Amino acid sequence: MRSAEMIELWRGDMRESLHRGHAIICDAHGVVEAWGKPSQVIYPRSSCKMIQALPLIESGAADAAGLTDRQLALACASHSGAALHVQGVGGWLQGLGMAESDLRCGSHMPRDPAENKRLTCSDESPCQLHNNCSGKHAGFLTLNRHLKGGAEYVAPDHRVQQAVKAAFEEVTEETSPGFGIDGCSAPNWACSLEGLARAMARFANPGQDRRGQAMQRLVDAMRAHPELVAGEGRSCTALMRAMGGAVAVKTGAEAVFVAILPQQGLGVALKITDGATRASEAAITAILIHLGVLEAGDPVAQAYLNGPIRNWRGMVTGSLRTSPGFPS
Amino acid sequence: MRSAEMIELWRGDMRESLHRGHAIICDAHGVVEAWGKPSQVIYPRSSCKMIQALPLIESGAADAAGLTDRQLALACASHSGAALHVQGVGGWLQGLGMAESDLRCGSHMPRDPAENKRLTCSDESPCQLHNNCSGKHAGFLTLNRHLKGGAEYVAPDHRVQQAVKAAFEEVTEETSPGFGIDGCSAPNWACSLEGLARAMARFANPGQDRRGQAMQRLVDAMRAHPELVAGEGRSCTALMRAMGGAVAVKTGAEAVFVAILPQQGLGVALKITDGATRASEAAITAILIHLGVLEAGDPVAQAYLNGPIRNWRGMVTGSLRTSPGFPS
Repeated sequence: MRSAEMIELWRGDMRESLHRGHAIICDAHGVVEAWGKPSQVIYPRSSCKMIQALPLIESGAADAAGLTDRQLALACASHSGAALHVQGVGGWLQGLGMAESDLRCGSHMPRDPAENKRLTCSDESPCQLHNNCSGKHAGFLTLNRHLKGGAEYVAPDHRVQQAVKAAFEEVTEETSPGFGIDGCSAPNWACSLEGLARAMARFANPGQDRRGQAMQRLVDAMRAHPELVAGEGRSCTALMRAMGGAVAVKTGAEAVFVAILPQQGLGVALKITDGATRASEAAITAILIHLGVLEAGDPVAQAYLNGPIRNWRGMVTGSLRTSPGFPS
Repeated sequence: MRSAEMIELWRGDMRESLHRGHAIICDAHGVVEAWGKPSQVIYPRSSCKMIQALPLIESGAADAAGLTDRQLALACASHSGAALHVQGVGGWLQGLGMAESDLRCGSHMPRDPAENKRLTCSDESPCQLHNNCSGKHAGFLTLNRHLKGGAEYVAPDHRVQQAVKAAFEEVTEETSPGFGIDGCSAPNWACSLEGLARAMARFANPGQDRRGQAMQRLVDAMRAHPELVAGEGRSCTALMRAMGGAVAVKTGAEAVFVAILPQQGLGVALKITDGATRASEAAITAILIHLGVLEAGDPVAQAYLNGPIRNWRGMVTGSLRTSPGFPS
């Protein structure tokens, strides 16, 4: 069993490039549909932020700090570093009596065009609040204060990361084969793609127990605040808006994408083998259309799949399409 | 025969992403070494600009216009739109009695950080001179003036593009199966990867005839002016400098890369199936090391292959490596 042909870039009458990958749809009982290899081991990267946020709620830390749904959405976000994200995380830290310097995510220029331009043209450096993972790290700091842990909360053996690992292995129902260091310096635990899809199905079918309630709060927060989970013009935000908040979706670096469909009780996880975001966005769009929660004709859907690709003079040069055997 | 595993992104102890592709090395007699499928049909995109520039010289248009090696290098370039590129092409058009408005390449923001910042912070729009293909188009305009053709020189049936097609089919020794419209609006003719590598081998073994002399001039111009072929921090410029101008290399969109090795009499062409530039840069680096023209320990080589990948806090997270069976 190997990867499946999924997304093709066509130019003129010829397929110019091809993206292979693995995609799994699970319900509460297991795999419903699969393309490629369910046992493929991957790093979920940022696609598992809602899993990494479970201990924040289950420990009681979120309630002790009085976190709002907006803050929970930021904890699950890979945000654009726009003013609302930077202020949201900055205010959160202030409420904890902490500062940007307590973060361990590092700094990078924000994707948000306005904030990027502001920093560029004022020769100002970005701060750690601009890091797309700063909300997740504010969540780590909130949990860490509750657990009274040490300052270096991204160390793999730190109690915060061990709590994340425990939750991750429980919801994926797997013992993780190991971790890699993520762009934000936190350990990112590996799992099979089926394990990740299984976890997303659990978020889509939350029980009434403590974990189920935590899953429900996180999914509701993501669906209620798509603008906080990513940002204007970003796929997670645009796709969640296009589906009217019925579905939660989250991307991860190196072309991972997950979806949580509460009304259908389904969880989706996919990984494009080569790590291309254009292909993971097209593939999750194809699956959401396939599952009947996104209209193929929706302008947002067409922006990621099947819509015309135009060059600098507006001429149509080609399009991104699904491969035969992968839903379009 | 299918694509070969070529470049792998490793994170922690695990392969996170994989890039497959095709790569061919030819000498004057044909294929010397191949990975993947030599018959794979591709769009060479910008990797064939030195082929597209042949009619410019062979027609006598270049000499009639008194073009310098710097202008010939710009004709083969996918430049960064830095001041030296914009001024170089602008001066060229002025010398022809033409203007930026005669170009048909369209405009996009330049890659060059300084020029990009200047435009961004002055709210100035980029012009067609900033287009990475503006030098190729200045070459088209120079040929067009010589041929007394119509203004719409990018039309596939225009005599300029027909002259380009004829040269392309002659040096690839193939009848092109067709064309796609490139980002710069010019038709980009398809060929097999073997055909492209064969053409590069001809550039590496130019005869004394008119075509051989034209090939020699273009390769010499590229090797003499690596800063004009791409720009500071770009792979073509950095790799040509690292090899002391002994080898000409050129990238193309969707992960095509070619190399011309005159001293070895070899031509190289490769295409990463998924179109990822990080992988085409790593793969051409691996092949140049394999052919003994680039030191594996050279900082430039390590920037594209095997060097540590660091995150926002400088922590090493992984590296790009060659797959087993592909040279490293």
